[in-house]
Order: sequence, then structure tokens, then C-alpha cells
Amino acid sequence: MDEERAWTIATGWMSTLADLDGASAVLEWDRETVMPPGAAEARGSQLATLAGLRHRHLLDPAAQPALEALGASADPWRRASAQIGMRERGRAERVPEALVRSLAEASSRSVAIWAEARASGDVRAWLDALVPVVALTREQGHALADGGDPYDALIDLYEPGTTHAMLEPVLADLAERVQPLLDSLADRGGPTLPRGPWPEAEQMAVAQEIALDIGFDPARGAVGRTAHPVTMALGPGDTRLSTRVDPHDPLSCVMAVLHEGGHALYDQGIPQDLRRTAAGDAPSLGAHESQSRFWENHVGRTAAFWQRLQPALTRAFPGAAAGLSADDYVRALNRVARQPIRVESDEVTYDLHIILRTRLERHIILGDMEVEDLPGAFDEGMLSLLRITPGSPSEGAMQDIHWAAGIFGYFPTYTLGNLYAAQLAEAFGDQVGPIGEVLASEGPSPLLSFLRTHVHVHGRVMDTPDLMRQATGHTLSADPFIAHLERTYSTTASLS
Amino acid sequence: MDEERAWTIATGWMSTLADLDGASAVLEWDRETVMPPGAAEARGSQLATLAGLRHRHLLDPAAQPALEALGASADPWRRASAQIGMRERGRAERVPEALVRSLAEASSRSVAIWAEARASGDVRAWLDALVPVVALTREQGHALADGGDPYDALIDLYEPGTTHAMLEPVLADLAERVQPLLDSLADRGGPTLPRGPWPEAEQMAVAQEIALDIGFDPARGAVGRTAHPVTMALGPGDTRLSTRVDPHDPLSCVMAVLHEGGHALYDQGIPQDLRRTAAGDAPSLGAHESQSRFWENHVGRTAAFWQRLQPALTRAFPGAAAGLSADDYVRALNRVARQPIRVESDEVTYDLHIILRTRLERHIILGDMEVEDLPGAFDEGMLSLLRITPGSPSEGAMQDIHWAAGIFGYFPTYTLGNLYAAQLAEAFGDQVGPIGEVLASEGPSPLLSFLRTHVHVHGRVMDTPDLMRQATGHTLSADPFIAHLERTYSTTASLS
Repeated sequence: MDEERAWTIATGWMSTLADLDGASAVLEWDRETVMPPGAAEARGSQLATLAGLRHRHLLDPAAQPALEALGASADPWRRASAQIGMRERGRAERVPEALVRSLAEASSRSVAIWAEARASGDVRAWLDALVPVVALTREQGHALADGGDPYDALIDLYEPGTTHAMLEPVLADLAERVQPLLDSLADRGGPTLPRGPWPEAEQMAVAQEIALDIGFDPARGAVGRTAHPVTMALGPGDTRLSTRVDPHDPLSCVMAVLHEGGHALYDQGIPQDLRRTAAGDAPSLGAHESQSRFWENHVGRTAAFWQRLQPALTRAFPGAAAGLSADDYVRALNRVARQPIRVESDEVTYDLHIILRTRLERHIILGDMEVEDLPGAFDEGMLSLLRITPGSPSEGAMQDIHWAAGIFGYFPTYTLGNLYAAQLAEAFGDQVGPIGEVLASEGPSPLLSFLRTHVHVHGRVMDTPDLMRQATGHTLSADPFIAHLERTYSTTASLS
Repeated sequence: MDEERAWTIATGWMSTLADLDGASAVLEWDRETVMPPGAAEARGSQLATLAGLRHRHLLDPAAQPALEALGASADPWRRASAQIGMRERGRAERVPEALVRSLAEASSRSVAIWAEARASGDVRAWLDALVPVVALTREQGHALADGGDPYDALIDLYEPGTTHAMLEPVLADLAERVQPLLDSLADRGGPTLPRGPWPEAEQMAVAQEIALDIGFDPARGAVGRTAHPVTMALGPGDTRLSTRVDPHDPLSCVMAVLHEGGHALYDQGIPQDLRRTAAGDAPSLGAHESQSRFWENHVGRTAAFWQRLQPALTRAFPGAAAGLSADDYVRALNRVARQPIRVESDEVTYDLHIILRTRLERHIILGDMEVEDLPGAFDEGMLSLLRITPGSPSEGAMQDIHWAAGIFGYFPTYTLGNLYAAQLAEAFGDQVGPIGEVLASEGPSPLLSFLRTHVHVHGRVMDTPDLMRQATGHTLSADPFIAHLERTYSTTASLS
């Protein structure tokens, strides 16, 4: 088939997929921000209908010859789009529809039970609902792996091009080097900010200001508020990010907007004319998380950032912020503490939580461990990695939604994001200058330019390991992250 | 086919249509409330993709035998659903897809040109873009009419069961009886409210309070703010209404929330378990408008309503509302004036605007009049019906979006809504008591109960003429509306 004709057919096929993905994202954004409780069932049905139509369209045989023809294109964008399209079709073909439906039903039921069980502490109910989810997810993993490693096949859904064999040595190295750092930092306490109140409307105004300051384009997106911060791609020219607001803690909102802002800048930086092709996205969740963590941890934890933000804070919170210096914010941010909840943990301990989950979920998927053993193994792991014991299962194995939702292989992408962010920050330091100094003298725009050039514009043309090697000159490594922790927390220590 | 089996197949088919309609409504609601400007093109593409998938699903041959089997069901809801389903399929079959696409493209282009032309006063540009829209709409009308009257076929899209022959005598009677009333009322002036400001956040809070007071269920819907007030059905359990806010005029917001609240109560009153079947909707736009106009004109223009609202107003607007009585609001609301803009016109003149448009658009569709002649004919009609001359084409034939969007046959539904609302209000008066007195003694709930019982619960089981005859005991007539105007405006006159 003539390549131009193949590209026309393929872009038509892909843009329908992009429209359905965008429409689903609109439905999800609305659900998180405005939807009344009475609409939950109908919204679920609408999303399922769109997913079913997407599945049917994905497998449309008419696309096959065009994708095959483009697989040999000299244009890397076209080639990548064809490969991604064929990969998605291959997955959809390997996993029978009945399995997809059973998994969706079992996880939807299990998530509902998990939410109640976590609140009430009912481990039994949670485990009973989890058993069929795990059985079906194992089946899915084997179907996708086609004889290979089922956990790798699940990782591949979220982090194409990365395997457990690539990950494990880096995670082991990371655990070993974080633990002594944690021993030296944890529980030494530190200052906190005044409880305010820090009025909510003003926090949202500051969040908006931060998003614009780091380069978010409001003509192609919007900033909202949700219980759980999130970024969603609702289509080309429509990137939504949300933050949370705690009236007694402004740090939570600021860090959330930097984190989600990092995701949103990535989304806005992908070439817009190719946004509706299969390559018009990030190559993986780890790549996406590298952007959010870059802004959150490598920008948001610097004194330079808080100095820049201080006039806005003083204006917005004349009461609560009175007399606070940039260093006060940084010190309050960079408290290190051993505590059991992943999402509330600091930058030093965070990855230990992930390492534990990665190891456990791999055993579960490979069948080396049964659901029944999860709570005990979780607590043992917490003790050996973090040297604490969760106060209850709700603070232990039951704390996260992922497993209940049938999401296995996703957890490692959080740590990949942290490691890649540190690698990118190091590369920026080498090529441009120390982030704090650049921020103080030129503001955030050199940072965004760097990420645009080295990451965003490439879309999904390469898998993440190649993209990051090209951007940073190095393969995956814990070194820059450890160096960043040592630098950040020795600075914080000297401040406190 | 066994009826139960047919119903299972038909409800499956209908619920996919309902999901696609709901998803499209979510996309539209988001577009009106949050969407950034940069997303306009992508959102258009998403909506077009959903429309295309809907069209394909609508024509799915697998549904035909089930619908045919249900056409003979003894259950009126099932029978109506089957008939509506077959009517929709018939329309989709009669109008070729190429025509649908051409019409969508021509109207989308024409609407964009209209918006600019109305702002700049460029009649030529508007007319040139309108010519192909009219040609295609005529074609659509003839295709739908299948040898019958093409204007009736277009009316039938919005007001099934009503023909121009049923309408015209009532419109003529209405015009004749409104004109002397207008002569006696217009331009006698009257008091206005203070310009405030009436703060926007407080107006939204009052709007929310009004919606709850008249019976809107916030667990199954939400109240938002848009430039143009609107009500949208986003799915069972999700009815959104919006109001506008003008900081110098609280009446605009209050009347909008009553109007949209009327639509929303109707939507929430349709039996929820049948909401996703074809009969789970209003039978026509005129029926829907009867509900919005009922609350807006027969409740919102009474002194009893404003007495009820006064504590909220005084609390929300301690400055602007100080010293105002309920009668002050009613008097300010019920000013009558000849002015050219339909959407700003009072209750007395409103239908004259509609009568003019209905006559003109019928001539256009039948081919008795060409696009070129619209501006002149419009001004002549304004002179003869309203005795004014628009100051410019932007205040004349070019003021409304409808024709530019290829929407012909829709205008009469506004007047049908006004007439049916008055017929329902009269029936309420006969069966329960005078609205003002009931409102003062029992609040709005008897009104809602009456509408629920006589209109809402029936969904789309009957066409509107039958539904309204059953609810009011009368066929379409201008008598109750004229009586309402005479009563309202003689009362207002005595107040002023």
C-alpha cells in the first residue's frame, strides 16, 4: 500500500480512538469535579459503552494493512504510531472479551468493597473480594505474556520497554542506599507551618498563579479542584489539572499543583498536530511521572522556588504567611518521617513503599504468594524496609486502591518517575546550571525548554528507556536520585 | 419473537443510544462551563465521532425484529419505546448520510460566520453562508416528508404529532388578541430595580436555594453558571441546569433558574428506571418548554413567589435589596415594551416574535421565499406584528442562531410551551386552587406534584397533543394564555 494512503487510513482510525479516549476523559473529569452522586451508575454505563465501542474500533480489520505498511516508514513518528497501534491490537486480540468483562466486573465490585473495608478495617471482606480479581489478573498476565513472564506483561501495559529484570537491581540498590539516609534523617522532627487558616479560594488563586508561572497554557487547559489531584488529557488543546486544598496546610496544594502541573506541561508539550496519532502521547507512566516529580521535587523543594512564590503567598495570606521566610516553607516540606501511608510519605521514604509493593505484587502474579498471605507479608516488608509496623491493615496492605482495582505492574512506575526525574535534573544541572540558581535568575522557563526539547517533543517515538538515555546520557540508575536526596536533606539539615 | 426477549434486546439497544446521548451531553455541558478555547476543534471532533457511532448503532438491523414485536405490546411504555425507536430509524434511513454530513459542515461554517456577521453587521456574509444551509435543509425536509409537507416534517423533529395546520389558526388567534393588549400596556414605563451591584456569588447561592425550594434534587443533578442558561440531561440521575448572572440585574438570574429549573424538574420526574428507554424523555420540545414557562411565568411573576423569596434576597443582598418589597420585584419584572430582540422581550410580546419567525421559515422551507428576501420580510413583519423597526439587521433577521444552524421548525415550540404552560396553570387553578394562594400557604410542592402526576410520569408514552389534552382537558388554545396575560398585567397595572 502507498504510504500516504496508509497514513490517511491510519490517522482516520487513530483519530476515532483519540476521540473516544478524549470523550472518556471528559466523562471522568466531570465525575471527579461536578457529577452528583446519583449519576454514578449511569456514568459507569456510559464509560463502559465507550470502552466497548473503542474495543470494537481498535480491532477493525480495515486498519491492519495500513498499519503494516507504515511499520516500514522512514518517518519515525509514523513508524511508532503503527507499532503502537499494532501492539494495542495484539493485546486486545490476546485477551478474550469475556476475560475483560469478568475482570471489569470483579474489580468494580472489589473496589467498592475495598473502600468500605478500608474504612471499617474489615480485612476478610477485602481479601475475599480480591481473590477473584487476582485470579483474573493472573489469567490476563499469562494471556498477554503469551508464554513469557506474566508480571512483565502487566508492567508492559504501563511501562512499555521495561522489564522486572531491568528494574530489580536498581530497586535493590536504591533500597540499600536509602535506608542509611533514612536512619540519619527520620524522626529528627522539624518545624511546621502555622495552621492558618489558609483560605481555600486564595489557595486556588495561588495554584492558578503557579501553573501559569511554570508555563501552563490556560487557553489549552484548565485548573480545577478535586479530592485527589489529577491530570487528564481531554483532547488536543484540552489538558486539565486539579489540585487539592487543605485549609490548614498550603504545602499540600502547592506541591499538588507542581506535580500535576508537570504532567500537564508534558501533555501540552507534545506536538499538537500529531496529538491524535498513536505516538502523540507519553511513552509510559514512568516517563509521565518523571515530569511531575521533576517539578514537585527538583523545583518545589528548592529555596529559590519559595523565594519566587513568596510575594504571592504574602499577598494571598496576609495573616497566616506573615513573617514566614522561604526557608520556613522548605523546612516544613522536607520533614522526613517513618510512617505507614504511601501517599503521605516524604521523598526519602516514598520509594521504599513502592519497592515493597513491587516485590509483593510480583509474587502474587507469579503465583508464589496467595492473596491470603498479603497482609502478613506486607507488615513484614514494612518492618524490614521501613522499620515500622502499620497500626492496622487499613494502614498496611489495604491502604491502596490499585490491587483491589486489578492494577498490578503499575506501582514501579512511581519509582521510575522519581529516578528519571533525578536523572533529568542532573542532566539539566550539567548542561544549563544548578536548578536553584537558574530559577532565581531566569525563572522556570529554561527548565520547561529543557524538558520540551529532550522529552515532550518526542511523544511516543521511543520507548522510555531510549528516550531517557537520549535525554540524560545514562541508563536507569539510582545515583542521581541518591545524590539529590543527600544534597537536599543536608541543606535542609543545615537550615534547621 | 417472545415479548420479554424482544424487550431485553430493545433495552440493550436503547441503553447504548442513551449512553451515547448522555456522553455527548457531558461533552456539551463541559464545553459550556469549563472547556478552554483551544479545545473547540477537538471537542467538535469528539462530538462528531459520537454522533457517527450513534447513527451506526441506531441503524443496527438486529434491533428491527425486537422493535416490531414490541409495537404490538399491551404495555404502553414498551409500545411507545418501540414506535419512537422505529420513527428514529425511519428518519435515519430516509436522510442519506452524505446529506447529514453536508448539512453539519454547512451549518457549522454558517454558525461561525453568523456569529461574526451579527457582531459586525455584515448581512451579506450571513446570507451567503445561509444559502447552502437552506438548500440542504429543504432537501432534508423533503427527504423526511417522503412526499408530504417538508415544513411539517421538520416540525416533527422537535414537536412530533403537531402540524402547521394545527398551529396556524392558534397562532393567528394569538397574534390578534395580543396586539390590543400590547397597545394598552407597552411603553407605559414602570419602575426598575436599583443597579446594585448584586454580588455574583450571592446570586448563585440564591439560585441554588430557589432550585432546591421548587424541588430540584441535588443528589441527581447540579446547578452551574453559563453565559446562556441551559438544562442538560447527562444521564439518569444527572440533570444539570445553569443560570446566568448579571451583577446589575438579579431578575435575570432568578428567572433563568426558574425557567431551567422547570426543565430540570421535568427531567428528574421521568421514571428513573425507564430513563434509558426511548420513551424515557419528554415527548417534545413544546412539552419541555411548558414546564420551564410554568415556573418562570406562572410562578415567578407572582407576588407570592417574591414574598417567599424575600428573606433570602434580604440576607444575600443587604445593600441592594434594602427596602424593596415583593411588589417592587414583580413590577420591575412585568414591564412591557416593544423592542426588537426576542430573547430580551417580555411575556406579552414574546410570541409575536415567534409567530413572525414561524411564518418566515415556513415560506423559506416551502420555497415561497428566498434567503435573499429574509431581511426585508423580517422587518416588514416586525412592523406589522410589533409595530417597530429593528435598528439594524443584527437586531432583525440576523439576531438568532437557529437558521444559521440549519434549525427550522423549532421556533414554534417556544410558543407551544407558553400556551401549554398557561393551559396547565389554568388546570391547576381549577383542580387545586389559585397558584399565588397555594404558593403562599403550602409552598411550591403542590405545583410540582401536579406536574409530576399529569406530565412528568408519562414520559413519552403519548405525543404532546394527547398528553396535554389529558392533563388539561382541552386541546391547544390561546385562551388560557390570554386570560393569564390579562390577569397578570391588570394586577401589575394596579400596582404601578
